[in-house]
Order: sequence, then structure tokens, then C-alpha cells
Amino acid sequence: MGKGTVILAFSGGLDTSICVPLLKERYGYDRVVTVAVDVGQTAEDINTATEKGNLIADKHFTIDVKDRFVAEHLFPSIKANGSYEGYPMGTSLARPLIAEEIVKIARAEGATAVAHGCTGKGNDQLRFEFIFHGAGLEVVAPIRELNLTREWEIQYAQEKQIPVPVVKEKPWSVDENCWSRSIEGGKLEDPAFHPPEEIFHWTVSQEAAPVTPAVISIQFKDGVPVALNNEPMSGLDLILALNTLAGAHGVGRNDMMEDRILGLKARENYEHPAATVLLVAHRDLEHLVLSRQELAFKETIDAKWSELAYMGLIYEPLYWALTSFIDKTQERVNGTVDLKLYKGSVHVLGRSSPDTLYSDEYASFDSTTVDQCDAVGFSKYYGLQARLLMNQKRD
Amino acid sequence: MGKGTVILAFSGGLDTSICVPLLKERYGYDRVVTVAVDVGQTAEDINTATEKGNLIADKHFTIDVKDRFVAEHLFPSIKANGSYEGYPMGTSLARPLIAEEIVKIARAEGATAVAHGCTGKGNDQLRFEFIFHGAGLEVVAPIRELNLTREWEIQYAQEKQIPVPVVKEKPWSVDENCWSRSIEGGKLEDPAFHPPEEIFHWTVSQEAAPVTPAVISIQFKDGVPVALNNEPMSGLDLILALNTLAGAHGVGRNDMMEDRILGLKARENYEHPAATVLLVAHRDLEHLVLSRQELAFKETIDAKWSELAYMGLIYEPLYWALTSFIDKTQERVNGTVDLKLYKGSVHVLGRSSPDTLYSDEYASFDSTTVDQCDAVGFSKYYGLQARLLMNQKRD
Amino acid sequence: MGKGTVILAFSGGLDTSICVPLLKERYGYDRVVTVAVDVGQTAEDINTATEKGNLIADKHFTIDVKDRFVAEHLFPSIKANGSYEGYPMGTSLARPLIAEEIVKIARAEGATAVAHGCTGKGNDQLRFEFIFHGAGLEVVAPIRELNLTREWEIQYAQEKQIPVPVVKEKPWSVDENCWSRSIEGGKLEDPAFHPPEEIFHWTVSQEAAPVTPAVISIQFKDGVPVALNNEPMSGLDLILALNTLAGAHGVGRNDMMEDRILGLKARENYEHPAATVLLVAHRDLEHLVLSRQELAFKETIDAKWSELAYMGLIYEPLYWALTSFIDKTQERVNGTVDLKLYKGSVHVLGRSSPDTLYSDEYASFDSTTVDQCDAVGFSKYYGLQARLLMNQKRD
Amino acid sequence: MGKGTVILAFSGGLDTSICVPLLKERYGYDRVVTVAVDVGQTAEDINTATEKGNLIADKHFTIDVKDRFVAEHLFPSIKANGSYEGYPMGTSLARPLIAEEIVKIARAEGATAVAHGCTGKGNDQLRFEFIFHGAGLEVVAPIRELNLTREWEIQYAQEKQIPVPVVKEKPWSVDENCWSRSIEGGKLEDPAFHPPEEIFHWTVSQEAAPVTPAVISIQFKDGVPVALNNEPMSGLDLILALNTLAGAHGVGRNDMMEDRILGLKARENYEHPAATVLLVAHRDLEHLVLSRQELAFKETIDAKWSELAYMGLIYEPLYWALTSFIDKTQERVNGTVDLKLYKGSVHVLGRSSPDTLYSDEYASFDSTTVDQCDAVGFSKYYGLQARLLMNQKRD
Repeated sequence: MGKGTVILAFSGGLDTSICVPLLKERYGYDRVVTVAVDVGQTAEDINTATEKGNLIADKHFTIDVKDRFVAEHLFPSIKANGSYEGYPMGTSLARPLIAEEIVKIARAEGATAVAHGCTGKGNDQLRFEFIFHGAGLEVVAPIRELNLTREWEIQYAQEKQIPVPVVKEKPWSVDENCWSRSIEGGKLEDPAFHPPEEIFHWTVSQEAAPVTPAVISIQFKDGVPVALNNEPMSGLDLILALNTLAGAHGVGRNDMMEDRILGLKARENYEHPAATVLLVAHRDLEHLVLSRQELAFKETIDAKWSELAYMGLIYEPLYWALTSFIDKTQERVNGTVDLKLYKGSVHVLGRSSPDTLYSDEYASFDSTTVDQCDAVGFSKYYGLQARLLMNQKRD
Repeated sequence: MGKGTVILAFSGGLDTSICVPLLKERYGYDRVVTVAVDVGQTAEDINTATEKGNLIADKHFTIDVKDRFVAEHLFPSIKANGSYEGYPMGTSLARPLIAEEIVKIARAEGATAVAHGCTGKGNDQLRFEFIFHGAGLEVVAPIRELNLTREWEIQYAQEKQIPVPVVKEKPWSVDENCWSRSIEGGKLEDPAFHPPEEIFHWTVSQEAAPVTPAVISIQFKDGVPVALNNEPMSGLDLILALNTLAGAHGVGRNDMMEDRILGLKARENYEHPAATVLLVAHRDLEHLVLSRQELAFKETIDAKWSELAYMGLIYEPLYWALTSFIDKTQERVNGTVDLKLYKGSVHVLGRSSPDTLYSDEYASFDSTTVDQCDAVGFSKYYGLQARLLMNQKRD
Repeated sequence: MGKGTVILAFSGGLDTSICVPLLKERYGYDRVVTVAVDVGQTAEDINTATEKGNLIADKHFTIDVKDRFVAEHLFPSIKANGSYEGYPMGTSLARPLIAEEIVKIARAEGATAVAHGCTGKGNDQLRFEFIFHGAGLEVVAPIRELNLTREWEIQYAQEKQIPVPVVKEKPWSVDENCWSRSIEGGKLEDPAFHPPEEIFHWTVSQEAAPVTPAVISIQFKDGVPVALNNEPMSGLDLILALNTLAGAHGVGRNDMMEDRILGLKARENYEHPAATVLLVAHRDLEHLVLSRQELAFKETIDAKWSELAYMGLIYEPLYWALTSFIDKTQERVNGTVDLKLYKGSVHVLGRSSPDTLYSDEYASFDSTTVDQCDAVGFSKYYGLQARLLMNQKRD
Repeated sequence: MGKGTVILAFSGGLDTSICVPLLKERYGYDRVVTVAVDVGQTAEDINTATEKGNLIADKHFTIDVKDRFVAEHLFPSIKANGSYEGYPMGTSLARPLIAEEIVKIARAEGATAVAHGCTGKGNDQLRFEFIFHGAGLEVVAPIRELNLTREWEIQYAQEKQIPVPVVKEKPWSVDENCWSRSIEGGKLEDPAFHPPEEIFHWTVSQEAAPVTPAVISIQFKDGVPVALNNEPMSGLDLILALNTLAGAHGVGRNDMMEDRILGLKARENYEHPAATVLLVAHRDLEHLVLSRQELAFKETIDAKWSELAYMGLIYEPLYWALTSFIDKTQERVNGTVDLKLYKGSVHVLGRSSPDTLYSDEYASFDSTTVDQCDAVGFSKYYGLQARLLMNQKRD
């Protein structure tokens, strides 16, 4: 009699595939249930995971959470101008949701433990285990715990009759959901190496982009996009449409040095066409409707929200309080932003809002508000303490 | 016997030109000294100011402070990633320097007052007067105080034999120095209006930019650029060279809603090719050499520095303390950034530094530092309090 | 035919009393309506205002808003640990509420303008006028606009048969509501002057306080006090009871340099016994129930909330967003704090909460959570980047 | 042939004493060198450590770093108003200095490893190991790694002829240096337990304090205290004198819930008479000499500095940059603060400074600066955007 059922977060790749027999042979579990969570990977990846899971596990689930991903993680991230160290987050936003689906199935299947295929160097082990530990579940991480070479893994897979992709080892590591595609590892690790064109799948090169720009408009309500070119769309459809459209214009690449949670710096390349366009548009609209005080302070709020989201700490109570702040400001983030997509860049052309704080009437200084001479009084008090200090120094 | 000498900040335009006779006739000054401060306007503008000042004022000075502008204001702004509400500042950085030159000449000429041609709606009156009041000088602002129409001004100028530009009233208002060119007013005031191509002088349109990208490298030392493509250059030369080069690739335009100091929102268009390139490169290099803690906290520092710089409050003692913080961090901001300029955008291709905090050796987890299993311990403590709360909620 | 009705914020003092005839004679209003708003001044002050208003104005209102003051301003201030430059705010919290009552009566009486008796040096003119201007009302400020001496005011009052207090000019200026009493002016202006005992009315001296301490407990729910020594009380009753009790133990004095809104530094003395006790207790309870991340970040939130509240800018939308943040955190601020009041100080003795994040079970490190050896792994990653830098320096 | 020399941080208590033989028997070191670092513990504690180290180790060092502790850690902490979660830090400030002395001796003695006696629950293991790992030294932590009971430890000590204190196990755990004394553990762990008088050694109870207050003055230069009652003193002497004086008046106790680095909440009691008095005085003086902008922003700086100091991360480069900020502001923190110590509390009576930003001349509004009417203009712009929003809502 073994240790019962373990639920394995499953991608269909070599690492998570060999975890299935390993969890039985090395860890003593009786039953391995694989779960693939669809957050917008390619259909091919999801199909592979489903087929392989059905083939090698005792039970397999493929769960589509794309709409929930948009509603609960991507929309909040738009409201928060969600970016970590300057670039839109993607992978980190999907991890808690995946982990929660695993937990749900663990409860339903009466599992005693959950397992993942992460290594001990990255962020995902921490994001997953935060949810798993918070749920009180035992965690197994074979890839982190056993020191396996790729050769050993392939041979072991063949012994266990697990299909191994015939392609040779990929020179870089990729993660993908409907918001973002990350490429890292191999030669890309060198911060000075210029990334080759072949690493990009969602975006064409600037040079290959069409010579005619796309001019689009995005409509926002309560801080989230609700229509593209005035055509109402679900969040998921709008994001997918923008990925295609902006990607075709070469928009949405980033190359950066990123500080991982454990403290290591890593070079990362990203593609996120929709995210780039939506964040540019959202931020521009905020500058039309939010007060200067809101704009300045919300930068601090957004940065902290993004840090927690990057860390996967979505149950840290600070995350909820930050969300309350953000949601309150977004009630007035309504309107339209016009944008031009062209040869790898996005530019705002104009914006309008029923909640605008720009007022041409106000700017005309009518008598009940302010007149030019009031500025004299304002100026007399401007920088008063600094001027006192200047006077002291002069004397 | 009148009120003595007044020093007038002089651009050679209609407003400041008619201030010369007005300061005598309306304000009773005996002598008007005009001062044009060269912070990198076009040579034509500086020449016009010089000729006109010599023609109509009792005495005129044209003072070239471009190198000091770079050293004392633009370089610090690069170190601080200086941007206000998301875009590189320009006009605001030049104002205190101009005001200080006026004050120097006021002292040298024994003037009792200083004058400027600003209106009562904008930022510049406040930036100038902060320095003037801090110097204990009386301030006169004829354009703000007298309600003059353009027609009246032209007729008055003709009476006083002041040359009036034959061109009809410009449809927008422009300010220029070697770091930035701003265009505002007229139809551009409407936030939804798409700006016409003709407002831009420093940058070609994306469509008109060459089909061949420029790949360049910029070398930084102590946080400031010291060489372009490994060729050492003075700061001013490097900025001018980048304005030309990046401008020719359509790089460096911005269209934004800006919150002015007095609280009004205004739509602004900017050109700043060198600033765009240098800030992208500088920020990228910081991500290679600064610690995560420095990067996260410096965002707050940079934002406050930028706010004070935007307000022109360079003698606010907080500005000095922020500068001390920034300078300390910049000691390690040394290295090279490779960039691609193409069709209106700039992308980082790679970066390197003798002070890099990226370490491939470190990433390989040798025994004296960390191994993969240490992450297990780290993970056990990760988000501990939030997990305790999750446990409480579950029970 | 004059300018119609004006509503005057009325205290019954000499300044606001002479405003009644001045508003007719100098400003041309037909009708002056006085309004005294009761935010917890002494009964004597309110009675004086009521009697005098009824005597000299065309119509008078005395409006009791004490409960609303507690619910809408003091309770939020407790949740926000509301203090400005280190001391609990009081006057500033009452001003917007008073102004709003004035606006309501202005609407009801069809008034064209509102008036107040503030000078041009202080904060209250700005707090009042923010609300008045925001309501679109014309504002008249006779005391700021006319340069009146006290002698002239007394003679004018006598001419107009307005009762003048026989007491000689008070050597300091006092403001009072149920949360705080401020004393400023006269000799107290000198920052080095030691304040005499006579300025204090709510608190006994430390020396005169009883030799037996008071040990009390305060119960909080959702961040606000709901019971004293387990006896449920309305907010107002609890505050009044604590003012008496803590005041009798000499608790709640402050002497500080304060930066006024216009930029001047002023020396202020305060009494606020209930505020001192409640803020100490609230902050202590927060440390038991909020996460470290919440505690650290809420300091920034509280400081900004307090700054806006001090400035009276309660309709700045940032104020609402900060309030949303704070309210979210306060859902778990429930429990009891035991305190000792003695000879001018308050000390926390112990605290408990159903929402505590302290866990003795957790501290015992059971196997499903963490063990001592996990700390080794944590330690391996602790300060990683700084250590890399230390290594670089050493080499 | 064993593993060479190990350097042991040595307190003379049971834990570190048994580490001496354990490091040889269990860990295989040839030679154990003990080091006691004097940061202001009681003379008795230092003597015990010295005697015992000389008795049982192969070599022993006792090193007095009290003056360096004051100059390099306590003075910076005063400048930074150094407090963690509301209370002056102490233990954390001493740890890096102790660790550095250990590292120095490790280099001098050619040691291959260093050892400490910390458990796996607390902060000190992390603070020590940050320095040790940064120095590239191997770390041994027997108490954390071996699961020893107190009974086993006593018997083992007796076997090894190590003197064991005859006193029974102390009911709480104490740490002490010249800045602070902490008491924790046992019954004190319960947040609701009222601490008994016996835990305090540096401060008398409020009730036992003299009936006559002490009125003192402290002189500051560049943000640090240089004289007491106008008598110049070394930092160490001044701190020791204040510990005695304020402790005799019952000043300087704190009872709090503290969030430890690993995330656990712990109840702590502290005594720090000098720290309480100096931080109150320093903060008060800052309010006289720093600008409002400095004061508001320095709160954020101080909080971050304190967080890093609490964590012992004094080589994190952010710590250096924060220190640069702070030092710049402290150039003007000069002057005198008068204070009253009485029955457990300290109150500021008055303050003065050659760098004061309070100006009675300024407050009198002479013509070249501001007059009362200028406030009208200021008020017209006050809260402009919020008022626009109020107008929108009203319409």
C-alpha cells in the first residue's frame, strides 16, 4: 500500500512526462493524476498534453481557464499598468490560477500531495508552492530533487514507453499564455548577445512589418478594454485579436535583464503584442481622467501590485488592499484611445473620455474660477521654504 | 528720475520685444537690459534675439550656457531617468539656469528688478519667479499683468519701430533647447485631435525614415554617456549627434496629457530624439548593474527628483538629498548598451558592464553559494503570513 | 437692491461678529445668515454663538454634526492612524464638514455667496474655500481683505451694538472640537519658549495626575473603537469618555513645529487625550493582525491620507482611493488592547484578536510547514546580490 | 588531519560553550577560536565570556568595538530616526559589526569556517550569515543543525568540564548592547500577557520613578548628539549617561508585536532609554530645520533604511544610497532640544537652531515676500482638479 494519489501539473514535455513514472517508482505514490491547465498556450501544446496525459497517467484533466484568466488576472493587470521592472508580466499572472486548479482537483480526487516539474532556480516553484502550501498540501518536485541529465531522462522515457519528441533539445526555454510569450536560456543568457530573429513566434520583425500602418481605437470601461474599433468584444477575443494585429506590425517585443525572486539576474526576451498596446492605451487614458495626485501616487501602488503579482503572492492581504485602491480609481477610466501600429512601435494619436479632467472651458479662466492675476499670489508662495533657505545662504 | 534698471529675459519674439518700451512707459524703469540665454535653441532664434536686443534695449547680453546646461541639468536628468508623467522633461530643466543668468546680470548691472514675458497660465512664470524671489529681486511680468491683444501688440511694436515678424500668428507655441522641443496650443489643445506632421522639426515621420536601421552603441560612465560607438564625445556633442541621428530615424516623439503645476491638464507634443535614446539605454544599463532593491526604490527617488525638476524647484533641499542618493547609485552605472534605431522606435539589442550583477558563474550554483535544494527551504518560508491567513480562512 | 443673501460661518467671536454688519455695509449684501456648526466645541462656545447669531444676524442656525463628525471623519482618521508630521490631526478634520453645512444652508436660503472670518496666513481659509469653490459659490473673506485693527473692531462692534467680550485680548488663539484642542500664537510662537501650564484645559499636568494608574481596555471592530472596558458605546460617547479619563491622567499633550499648507512653519501645542489613546491602541492592534507587507505599505498610505486630510482635500479623488485601501485592511482589525494611563503617558500592556497573525502553533514549526533546517536554504539566498557585490569588491 | 580552524562567535552561554567541543567532535575541526565582541553588554557578561573562552577554546579574543558601534551604527540610526515597526532597533544594529570582527579574525587565523550558536527560528542567523557568506566563508551552526535538548546540553557540558551556570533556565531570553535590551520568550510570547516588572533591568517602573522631573537639553551637530546640557561628550558617554538618567525616570520601555525576517510574528519587550530620548529629540529638531518636502519624503527613506538595518543588510548597495540621502539632509540638523523626563515619559519643551526654517520675520509678511491677499490667488488654484470633479458631479 503506497502513498495514495498525487496530482501533477502537466505540460506534456519531457520533464513532466517522466515525473509520472517517477512519482510511483521513486516516491511511492499509487496513482498519478495529470492536469493540463489551458491559459492560452498554443492549441498544439494543449493537444499534446491532453493526449500524453491520457496515455501515461492514471487519469488526466485538461481544463480551460482562459476566460477566468482574463477576468481575474489580465484585466486587473491592465488596471494596475502591471509591469515588472518595466515590462508587462505574463507567466507570473498565470501561475496562481494553474495552481488553484491543481488544488481543486487534489480535493476532488482525495489526493495527499501535488507535484510540479519546476527546477530549483526559477520563480515558478515559489509561485506554485505558495498556493500549494497555503492549501495545506504536501508538495513533491522531482526535477528539483533528483539530479537528472537529459540523456537519462530520454532513456528513462523510452523504457517507460513515453513518447519523446524527436526534435533535438531546444536551444531556449519558452513559456506561453494568451498574454505573453517568454524566451530564455542558451545563448540568450549572455546579456550582450543580440537575440536572433528565430526566437520570435508572435511578432514579425520590424523590417518585415507592412509599410502601411494600422490605425485603431480601443474603448475602455472601468479601466478595462471593452471594444476594438468600437466593436464590443469579450476580453479574451480582444486580446487574441490584438495579438494577431499588433504582432503582424512587429509590436510587442522586449529584451531585458530581470531580477528573479531568488535574487539572480536573468536575461529575458518577451513577446506580448496585445499587452504592449493595451498598457500604452490604458496609461494614456489615465492621464486624461485621473487627477495629478492620483497619477503620481498610483505609480507607487501599481509598482507594489506588480511586485506581488510577479511573486505570485495573490493571497497576501496587501494585494487585496492595493486592488481596492486601484478599482476605486478605475471607475472613471472610461473612453477611447486612438493608436497607430507601425513597424514595431505603437503611438497614441488622440484620446477622449466622458470623465476627462481636461476642460477647455476651465482653461479659459472664467471669473468664478481663476484669473491670470491669481497666479501672482500662487507664485508668491511657490517654493517658500526653499527660498527662505536661499535667502539665508545669501546673507 | 525713474525706478532704475530692469533686466528682461529676452527671446526676441513679439511679447518680450514690446516689453522693452512697456517697462519704461508703463512701469517707469529708466533702463532696460535684455538677456538671451542660449540653451540650444536654433541658431536663428539666438541670432534674432541678439540682433533685436542690440537694436531696441539699452544693453543686451547673449550668453551661451549650453555646456553648463548639459553638465548641471541634462546629465543629472539622465542619472535620474528624468521624466514627468512618463516623458522626458526639457523646458523645465532649462528654466532655472536661464533665471540664474538673469540674476547674475541683475547683480552686475545694479538692477532693482527683473522681468519676464510669461503669461499667468503656464509653468514658466513659477519656475522663473522661484529663482527671482529666492534672490530677493522684484519681479515684473507685463504680459501677465496687462491684458494685451495681439493686434494691439503689433500696432504698439510698429509705433515703437520694433521689427515684427511678417509671418502670420503661428498656430501653435513652441519651446526649444538642445534636449527637447515642445509644441502646444491651437488645435493641438484638443486631446482627441491627431497632430499633423508639420508640427515636427527634429524628427522625420516613421514612414519617411530610412529602410535601413541604425545600430549604435552608447558608452556610459558614472551614469552619463561618454562615447557614441566607442568614440568619446563631450556631452553636448553626443546629444547633438543623437538628435540628428535618431531624429533621422523618426525616433523621439511623444504626445501626452500633462498636468501643469497650477493644476490644469494640457495636451503636449514633444520631440526629443537624444533624450529618448539615452533614457532607454541608461535604464537598460541600470537593470544590469543595480540591485533589485536599488532598482525598485530608485523608481520612487527618480519620480520625486523629476517632480521637483519639473517644478523648477532645484533649490528645494530635498532636491539635493535626492541627488546625493542618485549619484551614489550611479558610481556603478558603467558599460555599453547596443541599440537599434528604426522607423520611429529604439530597441535594446544587448548590454555589458564591468559592474554587472549578472553572473553566469553564480547562476551555475556552485557549492559555496547555493544549490537547488536550498530553494526548498526558501519556499517553505515564502509568503508565510499570507499562507497562515489562507489556512485560517480554510478552517 | 443689494447682492442678496450671504451665509457666514459664525463662531460668535469678535471677528465673525463684526463681519455681520460689514457684509452689509462694505460688501452690499441685503441679508446675512449666520451658521454655527457644533463639532464638539464647549457648550459655552456654542451657546454664545447661538445667542449672538440670533441677536445680530437676519437668521441664525446652530447645527449639531458631532455624530457625523465622528462617523465620517474621526473614525476614518483612526483607521488611517491619522497624524500630520507626527501628531493627531483635529482642526483640519472638522473644516470640510463645517463648510459643507454652510453650503447646504446657502442652497436652502438661495444665497449667492458665503463668508468666513479667516485671515490670509492660515490653513482654514484654504480648507473652507476648497469646499466653497467646489460648490461654485462666491466667497467673501472680510478679515483677510480689510486690514482691521483690534481697536477698530471693538469700536465698530460697540457702534453696531454687538456685545464685545469684556475679557482682554487672549494671549493665544484656540481651536477646539471633540477630537482636539489647539493652542497657538503670542509667546508660544517662539519655538524655544516652554509653554506655561495655563494653556491646557483638557489635560492636567503630569505632576497633578493621580498616583494610581488607570488600566483600561478598548475593543475594536473593523478598525474603529466600539467599546471601552467591554462596555459598548457610541463613537462620540467613547471619545468624550476617553477625553475625560485620559485627560485626568495628563495624557494627550503635544508640542511641535508644524508646516502649514502655505509653507510657513508654526509652533503648535495640542491636547487630544482620546486621540492619543485610540491611535496608540489602534496601531498596536494593527501590528497583531496585519501582515508585515500591509504594515509597511500602509505607512505610506496613511501618510498620504493624512496629508490630504490635513489639507482639507477630501474630494480629491486620491482621498477616496486611499480610503478604499484602508477600509479593506481594517476588515481584520478586530480585538482588544489593554492600556495603562499614568502621569502623562499611555502604555500598551497586552492585546488579543480573533484575527491574530501570531500563532504559537505556527511558531512550533510542525512538519507540514517549516523546520529549522529550511532556514539554511533561506539564508543561502539572503541578500544574494549584495553578497555578489561583496565578492566582487573583495576580488 | 581535520578541517582546520573554525572561528566561533562566543557569548559564554551554554549554547555557544558546548559548541566548542561539538565543533571538534561532530564537525571535525582541529582548532576552535572563540571571539566575544563587546558592543556594550554588561561587564559581567563580557567577563564571563572572556574567562570561559580562555578556559575552553584553543584561543580566545575579546574585542571592544563600542566606539565603532556608536560611530558606524548608532549615529547613522539616529540620523535615520531608525526604528522598525515603530520602535528603536538595537540587536540588529550590532550583528553586522560582530560578524565583521569574526571575519577579520578568521582571516588572521587562517580559518576555513566560522560558527555561531543561533537557532533556525530567529533573525540573527540571517544577519550573521549574510556577512559570512559575503566574505566567502563556510558557515557552521551546530545549535540549528543538531536537535539538542537543554538536559543533553547540560550533561554534555559537564562531561566536557565546561562550567554550567547554576541558575535554573531563565524564563526569557535577553539580548543586550549599549543601545537596547530585548526580552522575549516564555510567557511573554503570549501577546495578551501583561509583562511583569522583573523583566526590566535598565528602567525603573513609572511608579518608582522620582517625583521630581529631570529637565535636560541635548545639542546636535550634523544630526547626531554632541553634548548633554551643553557639556560636550563622546557619543558613547552620552548614550551611557542617558541610559542611566532616563532609565531612572522610567523612560524607554516598549512592548510590541514584531514581524521577524522569516515572517513569524513575535512579541517583544524592549528597554532603550537613551534611544527613546535621542530619537524624540532628533525628530523634533528635524521639524524645525528640514523643509516640509524633506520631512515628508525622509519618512520613506528612514523606513527603508530601517528595514535594511533590521535585516542586517548593510552591504546592500541601496543602504549606501539611502545613507547618502540622509547624510545630505543632516548637514542642517544642528541645534538644541529641551526635554522633560518624568514618570516614564519624555516631552519636548522647546527647541532652537541656527538652521531654523521658522522665521518670525517671514511670518510677518513683508512686502517683498507675500501679503495676505496673495493667499486669495493661492486659494483660487487650491485643489483645482478635485473642484473640477465636484463641479462635474454637481451638474
